[in-house]
Amino acid sequence: VKAEILSIGTELLLGSILNTNARFLSQKLAESGVDVYRQTSVGDNVGRIAEAFAEALRRSDAVVASGGLGPTKDDVTLEGLARFLGRPLAVHQPTWRHIKQRLESRGYKMTSLSGRQCRLPVGAIVFPNPVGTAPALLCETVFEGRKKWIAVFPGPPQELEPLFKPVLTTLLRRANVRPEHFIKRTIRISGLLEIDVARKVPDLLKSRPPLTVGIYAKPGEVELAVMSKHVSRAKALAAADRVEKTVRRRFGADVYGVDNETVASALGALLRKKKSTLSIAESCTGGLASDLLSDVSGSSDYFAGSLVAYSNRIKEDLLGVAEEVLKKHGTVSPQTAWLMAKNVRQVFGTGYGIAITGIAGPSGGSVKKPVGLVYIALSSPRKITVHENRFYGTRAEIKSRAARMALDLLRRALLKNF
Amino acid sequence: VKAEILSIGTELLLGSILNTNARFLSQKLAESGVDVYRQTSVGDNVGRIAEAFAEALRRSDAVVASGGLGPTKDDVTLEGLARFLGRPLAVHQPTWRHIKQRLESRGYKMTSLSGRQCRLPVGAIVFPNPVGTAPALLCETVFEGRKKWIAVFPGPPQELEPLFKPVLTTLLRRANVRPEHFIKRTIRISGLLEIDVARKVPDLLKSRPPLTVGIYAKPGEVELAVMSKHVSRAKALAAADRVEKTVRRRFGADVYGVDNETVASALGALLRKKKSTLSIAESCTGGLASDLLSDVSGSSDYFAGSLVAYSNRIKEDLLGVAEEVLKKHGTVSPQTAWLMAKNVRQVFGTGYGIAITGIAGPSGGSVKKPVGLVYIALSSPRKITVHENRFYGTRAEIKSRAARMALDLLRRALLKNF
Repeated sequence: VKAEILSIGTELLLGSILNTNARFLSQKLAESGVDVYRQTSVGDNVGRIAEAFAEALRRSDAVVASGGLGPTKDDVTLEGLARFLGRPLAVHQPTWRHIKQRLESRGYKMTSLSGRQCRLPVGAIVFPNPVGTAPALLCETVFEGRKKWIAVFPGPPQELEPLFKPVLTTLLRRANVRPEHFIKRTIRISGLLEIDVARKVPDLLKSRPPLTVGIYAKPGEVELAVMSKHVSRAKALAAADRVEKTVRRRFGADVYGVDNETVASALGALLRKKKSTLSIAESCTGGLASDLLSDVSGSSDYFAGSLVAYSNRIKEDLLGVAEEVLKKHGTVSPQTAWLMAKNVRQVFGTGYGIAITGIAGPSGGSVKKPVGLVYIALSSPRKITVHENRFYGTRAEIKSRAARMALDLLRRALLKNF
Repeated sequence: VKAEILSIGTELLLGSILNTNARFLSQKLAESGVDVYRQTSVGDNVGRIAEAFAEALRRSDAVVASGGLGPTKDDVTLEGLARFLGRPLAVHQPTWRHIKQRLESRGYKMTSLSGRQCRLPVGAIVFPNPVGTAPALLCETVFEGRKKWIAVFPGPPQELEPLFKPVLTTLLRRANVRPEHFIKRTIRISGLLEIDVARKVPDLLKSRPPLTVGIYAKPGEVELAVMSKHVSRAKALAAADRVEKTVRRRFGADVYGVDNETVASALGALLRKKKSTLSIAESCTGGLASDLLSDVSGSSDYFAGSLVAYSNRIKEDLLGVAEEVLKKHGTVSPQTAWLMAKNVRQVFGTGYGIAITGIAGPSGGSVKKPVGLVYIALSSPRKITVHENRFYGTRAEIKSRAARMALDLLRRALLKNF
């Protein structure tokens, strides 16, 4: 099946938002063996939408569109689709009930605006939206003598993503495509540059389909994306497993996880295994390290809590960092980090402690202590270590790199029985 | 000038990378008064690139393309451009020298691969790349009887962005366009649904160029995007100002800011004005509210710090929430939130306090206390208020909505002299 992607929304043409849907759809279609030949974005305009459907189907078998299904009058994707199909829009009763129920359960009333979302092209296959109002649609049509398919998804990514699989499965079944199994595995590596990772896996990066390995640099980490395709799911899986094993053997503790694992979840799993607990004293990261930890479901089992000590008075009063230490060495110093890590463990009564103090910028830096200087200290019942770091970037980037580095340092330490 | 954007690269069609260039180019073109009618992405294929140029120029005056200018053989944008223009590629001596110098200064040699980057379509205006090898190009051509322009930029954003302004300036001068000034203002509204905002500004949403107003729903907020265009910058600005004034009059405190302002920065500005300080006791948000506050540069002036009290023991020991209260009413209860807000102010010695306790899920919910139930309490020297909320979504979404709501509730309270 040859497909094109059509993104609908004037906000895309104005550059107000990034087109993350085009990327998601392209990725998922590629994983399902559907070739994507073109991506197009057009504005919220009935004529231009209808024309874009026609153009795309002149070249391809299917169009996968998103956006423009909202309740307000500027959203006209359904009108554009109906015009292209030459079919009227009519109220779709199940969708009407779904939207009415959803609105009423939240204490809102059905209005003529929300009613717009129930008027769908006659003959469309409708996929109710589990997390919103606008449904996804699949339309089959004969265009220039050949059978063609149009899938339309709501624009908000959290609504589009859960609807993708059921719609695509139906599309492929209708198109009589024998599905290939596609296994994608992302192997996550911390603490190395892209070039250093590439040098250790030149053989893997040269792999050709049905197995490919891509390398991507992300802030503070490098991803190896393994893609393995086969009509047998077991064989696709086995090939991906072999690559993962090879990478883990070559990189050891630098591999912190795969797929949806994060540094926080990897650290959490280790703490859980040790039946231990953690507390954090954060200064320049302002709560971000704690936020990352608490993003992991069930983290309250090992994460006791943290103290965000933004002012020196709090560091003194609540963390017991002596005024003399702050005066003599400064807030951003290995000595302060050491004491914060030592005391946070005791204040919270946890097995381990992390402390972070640094200069996130853009102001507050000096020649001796530039923006980006961050001390991270780790404490256990046995010892305390301090790590000096220099991060680059904006305030938000420095905060993010420092918070992730702190969690990763403790993860690596726990692997060595810190 | 009507323009289209053409992004070239198979990695886009595979969803391997996000198309940030399309957004950057759209934004900058809109700001320069150039209307963008379409964005297209095609793969690295000579025929499809040439065809995409032709299609776009059939509809528009100019194409702004990026990508596919690298030294390796898979990059064929110049071949595609030459085929469309019907002109040969020839070595461009200044570009040859630029690339040779650049490579040699880094200890590399000029190879036949880097030589590919110097073979440019005859007649192109060439803009040397200050941070890389591939230059940007501007080609003028007559197509279907009318003068048209094609700009081509290298794909890496750090190379494209500095080349944009000189190329666009030349294009507009060649096209005899009197440059228009474009003012974009995003008015940010909290606490209302998109549909409720739309109902209060039907007149504004109907505005037509040179002044348009778009409405966009974001998690926990709604944006009104005002775009105002005029040859006089003062007049464009005045029109945007008028809309902002109207919106502020209709929505009052629901408007928390414009453009890059966040709920955290708006709250910070109020605290600064009152010369007061804030501390936070976070349970289910795990540090996120603090993280948002500390994202604002200079926030240490009013943000003293916070206690992330993930476990009950911490709530008892460090926040002084009596064990009986936790036992009788539960951790997630108005009573616990009230006490947390009361005590965090005292523990940190701040003017104001915020407390957040709730169930972020996915586990831990019950019929009486479902996932998404979050109590937010605010404390001032004068009083304490508790607010019950029910949020929907994933764990991360509930955390995010709760943290933003907490900051917004205090912002609204401060406006009323809480």
